[in-house]
Amino acid sequence: MDPDAVSKAFVDHYYTTFDTNRAGLANLYQESSMLTFEGQNIQGSANIVAKLTSLPFQQCKHTITTVDCQPSGSSGGVLVFVSGNLQLAGEQHALKFSQMFHLWPTPQSSFYVLNDIFRLNYA
Amino acid sequence: MDPDAVSKAFVDHYYTTFDTNRAGLANLYQESSMLTFEGQNIQGSANIVAKLTSLPFQQCKHTITTVDCQPSGSSGGVLVFVSGNLQLAGEQHALKFSQMFHLWPTPQSSFYVLNDIFRLNYA
Repeated sequence: MDPDAVSKAFVDHYYTTFDTNRAGLANLYQESSMLTFEGQNIQGSANIVAKLTSLPFQQCKHTITTVDCQPSGSSGGVLVFVSGNLQLAGEQHALKFSQMFHLWPTPQSSFYVLNDIFRLNYA
Repeated sequence: MDPDAVSKAFVDHYYTTFDTNRAGLANLYQESSMLTFEGQNIQGSANIVAKLTSLPFQQCKHTITTVDCQPSGSSGGVLVFVSGNLQLAGEQHALKFSQMFHLWPTPQSSFYVLNDIFRLNYA
């Protein structure tokens, strides 16, 4: 398992899905998944996707600036730390954000998002 | 174990130590600890503290804006996600940063930093 390859593939897939088919993110979370979105705690795939699809903008485009990753211990998990810009349709200025994911291995040799923490970086 | 209490106590201790006695951070890391600092990977307590004490500023002051945390799985670990400002002595403007820690339980009912990823948020 190469954490760099896993995290790059995940980041590409996650933000492309977010920007084109937000409801499709459901496949990346499970019942044990946790999201902290701007300080609000949400648990479980259905609740997390309900939150993400109800955000008050229809179209958006993420541009990734940095991706850092580390193995999270002996369990095969991967920590991914992302910074980037979020451009909302109709807004002049992009928002800066930071986000971390803890990817956890599945029995099918894939990964799901166990932990997800998102913050906008206010200027 | 209350992840909120653990993360608040850790954040207070970490940044106070960083700002007053950077070499004292050695106690918070172990040989398995990983730091990714602005994209540079460093492993082990001695190497990590060598990096942090060699940063090109003598005095600094961290001001914390947000602290988010989640349990990292069934192992008793805690993920901590921090945003804040870093004021360097003699500089007019503070730098914005984001940082994540993965705290791992020790046999002594304490925690050490297994994972640490730091990024400045460039405007």
